[in-house]
Amino acid sequence: AAHHRFRALDCEAVKHYVAARPALQQRVGPADSVESWTVKEVGDGNINFVFILEGPGGALCVKQALPYVRCVGESWPLTQDRVRIESEVLAEEAAVCPQHVPAVYLYDSDMSLIAMRYLAPPFLILRRGLIAGAMYPRLAEHLAAFLASTLFHTSLIKLDATAFRAKIAKYTNDEMCRLTEQVIFTEPYVKADNNKWTSPQLDADVAELQSDVAAKLAISQLKDLFISRPQALLHGDLHTGSMMVTDAETVVIDPEFAFYGPMAFDVGKILANLLLAFFAADGHEAASGQSRQAQRDWLLGCIRDTWNGFSASFRALWTEHAGAGDLYPAAFAGAAAPGGTELLAAAQAAFMDHLFHETAQFMGAFVIRRLVGIAHVADMDSIADADVRAACERRALRFGRSLLVHGARGPLHSIEALTEAAAAARD
Amino acid sequence: AAHHRFRALDCEAVKHYVAARPALQQRVGPADSVESWTVKEVGDGNINFVFILEGPGGALCVKQALPYVRCVGESWPLTQDRVRIESEVLAEEAAVCPQHVPAVYLYDSDMSLIAMRYLAPPFLILRRGLIAGAMYPRLAEHLAAFLASTLFHTSLIKLDATAFRAKIAKYTNDEMCRLTEQVIFTEPYVKADNNKWTSPQLDADVAELQSDVAAKLAISQLKDLFISRPQALLHGDLHTGSMMVTDAETVVIDPEFAFYGPMAFDVGKILANLLLAFFAADGHEAASGQSRQAQRDWLLGCIRDTWNGFSASFRALWTEHAGAGDLYPAAFAGAAAPGGTELLAAAQAAFMDHLFHETAQFMGAFVIRRLVGIAHVADMDSIADADVRAACERRALRFGRSLLVHGARGPLHSIEALTEAAAAARD
Ligand SMILES: Nc1ncnc2c1ncn2[C@@H]1O[C@H](COP(=O)(O)OP(=O)(O)O)[C@@H](O)[C@H]1O
Ligand SMILES: Nc1ncnc2c1ncn2[C@@H]1O[C@H](COP(=O)(O)OP(=O)(O)O)[C@@H](O)[C@H]1O
Ligand SMILES: [Mg+2]
Ligand SMILES: [Mg+2]
Ligand SMILES: [Mg+2]
Ligand SMILES: [Mg+2]
Ligand SMILES: [Mg+2]
Repeated sequence: AAHHRFRALDCEAVKHYVAARPALQQRVGPADSVESWTVKEVGDGNINFVFILEGPGGALCVKQALPYVRCVGESWPLTQDRVRIESEVLAEEAAVCPQHVPAVYLYDSDMSLIAMRYLAPPFLILRRGLIAGAMYPRLAEHLAAFLASTLFHTSLIKLDATAFRAKIAKYTNDEMCRLTEQVIFTEPYVKADNNKWTSPQLDADVAELQSDVAAKLAISQLKDLFISRPQALLHGDLHTGSMMVTDAETVVIDPEFAFYGPMAFDVGKILANLLLAFFAADGHEAASGQSRQAQRDWLLGCIRDTWNGFSASFRALWTEHAGAGDLYPAAFAGAAAPGGTELLAAAQAAFMDHLFHETAQFMGAFVIRRLVGIAHVADMDSIADADVRAACERRALRFGRSLLVHGARGPLHSIEALTEAAAAARD
Repeated sequence: AAHHRFRALDCEAVKHYVAARPALQQRVGPADSVESWTVKEVGDGNINFVFILEGPGGALCVKQALPYVRCVGESWPLTQDRVRIESEVLAEEAAVCPQHVPAVYLYDSDMSLIAMRYLAPPFLILRRGLIAGAMYPRLAEHLAAFLASTLFHTSLIKLDATAFRAKIAKYTNDEMCRLTEQVIFTEPYVKADNNKWTSPQLDADVAELQSDVAAKLAISQLKDLFISRPQALLHGDLHTGSMMVTDAETVVIDPEFAFYGPMAFDVGKILANLLLAFFAADGHEAASGQSRQAQRDWLLGCIRDTWNGFSASFRALWTEHAGAGDLYPAAFAGAAAPGGTELLAAAQAAFMDHLFHETAQFMGAFVIRRLVGIAHVADMDSIADADVRAACERRALRFGRSLLVHGARGPLHSIEALTEAAAAARD
C-alpha cells in the first residue's frame, strides 16, 4: 500500500496535526491555546524527525519517519514500515516492562508517525550524560531488567513454537537489517567509501584489521547469527543514544531496528557502548584536567552489574515460568517433571555460558564498527585533540578485536575477567 | 481460503480427474483408452494418498493430501498447505539437482494434489531394498550431491539476505514442524501415550533414557536449532522411506515437511536411517541365516562416503560461487578480495567442523526416536523375534545416546571414527 495519505510534517504542520486530534490535543493544552504552543524539531538521530510540542496543558513527542534516511536524504530510501515495527515493539516491551519504555498515545500508519510521552528534562540521552561525566546509580539494574524481560518473554523458553514463528514473521524487518549487515558486519572489515577513522593516526591499525583473517571469520559468524538465529525479539539498536535517563529512571526509545535475532546482539550492543564510554573517559580527562577515575570505575561496574543482573533476572524468569514454552516444555521442566529441577539448572548454566561467549564477541563487533565504520560515537568524536582521541580509540580497537575473535573462550572468560582486562588495557 | 473446491479422490475419481486434463491424460493414454486404465492406491506412508495410473500411453503418479493425517483419521487434522510446500520445494530442488527429484506435471492447490512422474519398478523405496539386503553402489554419491546442492543453493552463502529472508517466510511450515517437534524432540524423552518400544525387553533402557538429564539437555538444544536456526531449505523428512532407488538412480520424494532449518537436520536424518539399517542387519542375518556382512560393510562405507562426498561437494560449490551470497560477500571472499582465499579456507573448515558435530547429534536424535517414539522403522519392526530385535535396538539406542549427548566432541570425532565405533558396537 503506497503512502498516498502521507505527508512530511514540519513544526507548523505538526501543531495542526495534533490540534485536530482531541485525544492528543488535550495533552498539550485546550483548543483555544493552540496558537501559544511551541514546537521544536529535536531529532539528533540520523534517521527520523522528532518534534516536541509544549503548551499550557503539558507536552508531547511526535516522531515521524520519512521514506529515506534523514542524514543522507532521498538518495538513500528506507522503508516507512519501520514505524509499524517501532510502535508494535514499544507495545511488546510495555507489556513486560512498562517502566522502561515511553507510553505511546497514537500510531498513524498513513503518516508514519508515533505520538508518545515527552521525556522532559532532566531526562537526557544517556550518551550525553556519560560524555558530561555523569554516573547513574540505578542504570545497571534498569538495563538488566529491560534486557531480561524483553528477551525472555519473546523467546521459545516462554512462547509456544506457533506463537514464536508468528512473531518472527511479524517482525521481519528486511531493510533495517540490511543496514545493520552493511555497516556493522561488512564495511569495517573491507575498504568501503563509508568508512572513516582518525587518520593518519589509526591508518596502520585499520589496515591491520582489514587484513585480519581471524577477525573476518569471526564477524562473518556473527553476521550468520544476526541473520539466521531468531532467538528473541531484539530492540536492534540498543546503544547509549537509544535511552533517556535520570538518576532514578531509564527509558529505552527507538526500536525501529527490532527483529527476531540472537539475544547476544542486544546485550552486547549496550555493553559495548558502555565500554566505548570507558575508553573515551581518558580523553575527556585529558581535555578537562578533571579526574574521570570514579566514572571509569562506575562504568566498568555498570558493565559487570548489567551482565550479572541480566543473567540472574533471566534465570529467575525462566525458573518462574518453568515449563511455559516449547523449548523446555512442562513434561521436561515443569514443577512435576521427573528430574526437571536438575534439567533446568543444567539448561540455564549451558545457556548463560554460551550467551556470554556470544555477547563478548558481539561487544567486539560493536566497538570496532564505532571506530572504523560509518557511524562513530560522540563519546570519542567529542575528544578534540586527534592524538589523544586516537590513543583512546586504539586501546578500544585492540580490546574490541580480542573480544570479537576470542569471545569468552580466552582470557576474557567471565564478566569480571573482561572488566578487569579493560581496566588493565589503559596502562 | 477454505478448500471449498476440494474433494477427496478415490481410484475411480482420480481416473476422471486425469482424463479431464489433456496434458495429464496424454501421459497415460489416448482419450478413448480411459476405460482400460488401471489405478491403484499405493500410499504406504502415514500421511497422504498416492495413486498410480497406468494405461497404454504410460503411467502417472498422483499424490493427494487430505485435511488430516491418513493413518490416524479426522481426529488428527493437518494443514493441506503441505502440498504447496511440497510442490514448491520439488521445484527448488529440481532447479539444482533435477536428476534426484521426480518431475512435477501439475500442482492443483484447490484439490491439494500433485501429479508427478511415476517411478516404475525397478525403482523401489530405499528402505525396502535395504531390508531385503540390497546394496546401491552409487547411493552415497547421489545423496552427497542432493544434500550439497539443495543445502548450498538455499543458504546465505549463496543468497543475498533479502532473498534468504523471503524464502524463510515462504517456507514457514508451522503445523508440520510442530509434528516433528512433538514426535522427535519431545515425546521419546518423557512418558507419552504415543511412545512404543519392544517391551518388556527395552523397558529398563527406556526408563534410563527418560531420566537422562544429559540426553534431555542435548535434545532440547537440538530442538532449539530446529526451530530457530534457519540455515537452508531442508527436505525435512529425509529418511530411507523418502527416496526411490535403482542401481543407477536415486530420486528423493515427499518434501512436505520442508522448512528453513539447520542443515545438520537433513544430513543427520539420512545418515541415522542408514545407521538403523546397519544395526538391523544382524536381526535379518539371524532370521535368514544368510550373512549380511557385505551389506553392513557397504552401509558403513555409504555413511562415510555420503558425509565425505557431501562435505567435498558443498565446499566445491562454495569455492565456485565465492562471493555470491551475503554471508561471505565478494569484498570478503570474492576472487579479488585481499586474503579471500585464506578466509574461504578458514571459513569452510570451521563450518564443516561445526556441521559435523551437529550432524552427529541429530543422528543420535533420529536413531532414538525410531526406537522409542511413535514412528518406528520397518528395518527393525520386520525382525520377527522380539529378543533378537531388542538386542539390535539396544545397540542402536546406546550408540544413538552417545551421538546425541557428545556429538563429535568425544570419541566419535570424525566420520571414520563414528563408523568404526558403529562396527565395534556390534561386538
Ligand atoms: N519520547 C521522547 N522524549 C524526549 N525526547 C525524545 C523522545 N524521543 C526522541 N527524543 C529525542 O529525539 C532524538 C531522536 O530520537 P530517536 O527515536 O532516537 O530517533 P532516530 O530514529 O532518528 O534515531 C533522541 O535522541 C532524543 O533526543
Ligand atoms: N512418484 C512416485 N512414483 C512411484 N511411487 C511413488 C511415487 N511417490 C510416492 N510413491 C509411493 O507412495 C508411497 C507414499 O508416498 P509419499 O510421498 O512418501 O507419501 P507420504 O507423504 O504419505 O509419506 C511411497 O512410499 C511410494 O511407495
Ligand atoms: Mg535514535
Ligand atoms: Mg532510530
Ligand atoms: Mg513418505
Ligand atoms: Mg549481494
Ligand atoms: Mg510425507
